[in-house]
Amino acid sequence: MGSSELLEKLHTIDRDSLYLGRAASVLHWDQETYLPEKGVEERSEQLALLEGIAHEKLTSPETGRLLSELGSSTENPSGDEKLPELERDFLKVLRRNYDRAVKLPGDFVSAAARAEGLSQAAWVSARRDNNFSAFLPHLVKMIDFSRQRAIYWGYKDNSYDGLLDIYEKGMGVKAISEVFTPLGKRLGELLKKISSKLRPDYSFLDQEFDVEKQAGFSRDLLKRLNFDTNRGRLDISAHPFTTTLGSDDIRITTRYLKRQVQSGIFSTIHEAGHAFYEMGFPEELRLSSLADGASMGIHESQSRLWENVIGRSRAFWEAMYPVLRSYFPGQLSAFTAEDFYRAINLVEPSLIRIEADEVTYSLHIIVRFEIERELFHGKLDPAKLPDFWREKMKELLGVQPETDADGVLQDVHWSMGSFGYFPSYALGNLYGLQFWEKLRSEIPDAELQIAQGNFAPIRDWLKETIYIWGCRKDPSELLKTVTGKSLSAEPFLDYVESKYAGIYGF
Amino acid sequence: MGSSELLEKLHTIDRDSLYLGRAASVLHWDQETYLPEKGVEERSEQLALLEGIAHEKLTSPETGRLLSELGSSTENPSGDEKLPELERDFLKVLRRNYDRAVKLPGDFVSAAARAEGLSQAAWVSARRDNNFSAFLPHLVKMIDFSRQRAIYWGYKDNSYDGLLDIYEKGMGVKAISEVFTPLGKRLGELLKKISSKLRPDYSFLDQEFDVEKQAGFSRDLLKRLNFDTNRGRLDISAHPFTTTLGSDDIRITTRYLKRQVQSGIFSTIHEAGHAFYEMGFPEELRLSSLADGASMGIHESQSRLWENVIGRSRAFWEAMYPVLRSYFPGQLSAFTAEDFYRAINLVEPSLIRIEADEVTYSLHIIVRFEIERELFHGKLDPAKLPDFWREKMKELLGVQPETDADGVLQDVHWSMGSFGYFPSYALGNLYGLQFWEKLRSEIPDAELQIAQGNFAPIRDWLKETIYIWGCRKDPSELLKTVTGKSLSAEPFLDYVESKYAGIYGF
Repeated sequence: MGSSELLEKLHTIDRDSLYLGRAASVLHWDQETYLPEKGVEERSEQLALLEGIAHEKLTSPETGRLLSELGSSTENPSGDEKLPELERDFLKVLRRNYDRAVKLPGDFVSAAARAEGLSQAAWVSARRDNNFSAFLPHLVKMIDFSRQRAIYWGYKDNSYDGLLDIYEKGMGVKAISEVFTPLGKRLGELLKKISSKLRPDYSFLDQEFDVEKQAGFSRDLLKRLNFDTNRGRLDISAHPFTTTLGSDDIRITTRYLKRQVQSGIFSTIHEAGHAFYEMGFPEELRLSSLADGASMGIHESQSRLWENVIGRSRAFWEAMYPVLRSYFPGQLSAFTAEDFYRAINLVEPSLIRIEADEVTYSLHIIVRFEIERELFHGKLDPAKLPDFWREKMKELLGVQPETDADGVLQDVHWSMGSFGYFPSYALGNLYGLQFWEKLRSEIPDAELQIAQGNFAPIRDWLKETIYIWGCRKDPSELLKTVTGKSLSAEPFLDYVESKYAGIYGF
Repeated sequence: MGSSELLEKLHTIDRDSLYLGRAASVLHWDQETYLPEKGVEERSEQLALLEGIAHEKLTSPETGRLLSELGSSTENPSGDEKLPELERDFLKVLRRNYDRAVKLPGDFVSAAARAEGLSQAAWVSARRDNNFSAFLPHLVKMIDFSRQRAIYWGYKDNSYDGLLDIYEKGMGVKAISEVFTPLGKRLGELLKKISSKLRPDYSFLDQEFDVEKQAGFSRDLLKRLNFDTNRGRLDISAHPFTTTLGSDDIRITTRYLKRQVQSGIFSTIHEAGHAFYEMGFPEELRLSSLADGASMGIHESQSRLWENVIGRSRAFWEAMYPVLRSYFPGQLSAFTAEDFYRAINLVEPSLIRIEADEVTYSLHIIVRFEIERELFHGKLDPAKLPDFWREKMKELLGVQPETDADGVLQDVHWSMGSFGYFPSYALGNLYGLQFWEKLRSEIPDAELQIAQGNFAPIRDWLKETIYIWGCRKDPSELLKTVTGKSLSAEPFLDYVESKYAGIYGF
């Protein structure tokens, strides 16, 4: 069989597995948006079946055989050097997914899945009851399963490296520590400066904003951002998310809170940022595993860029505040765009990660990273986690939770065994500003364009420099290609320091 | 392996195939309700893949082997006589589905699917352009494929029997002709009587009814009918339909026309009738192929019973008209429940089946049945279809279409090769009234209950006598079990004759 024929067969397997994954995404999206209450139980059975079949397709001996015949191995994932670059990237990604899937024994996978189910349920009750010790045995199991998973997959120095590698290919403990340490330090200093200043008045946001009108504004906003509703939708769910149900079917969700108009707005912009990425993959990557984000962190860089750097900028509200005010004249006519800009950029150390502002958000992540690092280096007894959490919060944010529910139990991730995931969020902030720095150098009037409500130049630039690669490049490689530089916290730090010096006056 | 172990394996295959079918239904439902415009193309690929995998599961050699080991064969589908009745019914249905699927060669199935795709597209243009001859070659192919399919499946007298059998098990040309001939005759006589009388005034329905309010009334109506929104939903689509996405997830759709308030109302009630059936299967049939309607016609008997016998009754509007009027005081305050009752029961021979009233609807079906019968008995040249259509319409309804678009080209069914499907609609009317006659004898005050808006006794009766069987019984067997009688047009004819004598005064 010639290589083109082998590749065609491999693409068919990959495409079928993608279709099955997307079919599962339809079921999942429906579950979060429209599924009648009692339909949940059977739906999870349907989902498990679909995911099982997709997994079977991907890990069939046929896949392994085709990969090998095309010269792809764990050591040389991209295969035969004479193949076109695009196909070599395809082989690289497929080999990686294949290896990851087949290296885990079936028994281990089902044991882990069962344990995760129990662990999540235990976490829900433990958080509700503020009872860490009830969750502890599950947490210990989750750590063990994760460590074991890292062993199956293989790692260089420590099992934590192996876990980080899943979410942020090529990014290990050492590299992350090297940026997170100075990042934490300078953010801490910035926070101290801000805390010494007068807190801006944001009480006018604490009014009732009709939910239907909020939805109208969100749709309006998406239109102005050129979100293509022929290729996507906006719906409502309890937890906002973005999901790809097809190459031309990328959906986002948001939620509207009556007394927190900013929540729905920024969730919409955040998810739109994810969606722009997914909508922007080039034609030639469609219907293949290459039509994916380069990493969790790179994906998050896109959502945070839109939500924070663009969406929380003065220029953005220069264009959008008159629109927002036209939806809520009663609530907003006495306030200016500048008032609104200051109110949505309030900085305040708080206990809960998902409610944190731009300055403190990464500090919440560093707390989690340092805890995970200690756990997997065996230096931290899981039973001591609540104390260590309080200590770290005090050290980095200057506040301490009174309960574990507001502390170590607040996030779902660990209960699902997703160790190594948290750093992606903060890396997203850093990548985002590195990209933004480059974008600004190539579109010097970007801010002016934003202030005029013209987002096309930014959308185009992101598409042509970032989206165009899909997941062909690992995150650090993509960063190098786009910016010419390695990971650095400098652009992010310069951005927050300058922005908040302006707002708080120092 | 013991029989219980064999059965367990077979149930797993059946359940997986059911889950996959329902997953496909989620994708299909989404396509008709929320899918962004450009997502359609890839969605059909995803659907084809899912349906292919479901088919593969059902027709695997493993299925055949397990069926055989349990004593099930084409001749003795229910298998070993020592098995419990429920399992024997399960084997019967599974054997039937299995046989139907494996008897068609793979090449034939894909050739037919391709031809059907082209044929449907050709039909769409032909109807639009009123050009029957452009559709004719496709129609001829569809007839050939259907005849060939019937040969693969096997039949007694004529290939048309084989096709009818798919939709209405055990109901052949002879049995249907025997009821349709007198049915057509008496409906024709009734129509003549009605046409000689004064046409009731229904002009007050030709006003604008706000679509949002129509949706509000439909939701209200469903609530009063005890439609469980924890186990189902109502959405909007171009063509109303009912679909089962899970044992506890049965969804209906409707559509609202500004100037035809009755359209949305009766679509809602019609689909709710289908949904009640699907929601009412007993616990022990859940998650198996037995959780299905006994036939197309029995399913239609449920939707038509609710839509027409209950929904277009005087008693129903005695309860519901005040509610409807509260939604539309401007349009309806000058009119009584009796005015509304007469307006929604207007009888008039018309050209289009889906717009027909209770009296003329079955005549449209008889036209189609007689044409199909002649086609498959080889007595009618497909090229002569438009003329034959006009002739039959004149004979049975006294009207003739001026264009083929309003005549032979109006329905999608033949373009998809669905010959033998139409009779189910009229059989549904007949079954429905046979069931209703029995129900009335057991709930003598049914009308009074309806007039009081109390639908629980009717829902309960249908559940305990009909829904309880799922598809364990063939339609004629179910009819016998429930009513003690064979198929008869008498109850339906008695019902329409008496109802319309009352309205039109003769």
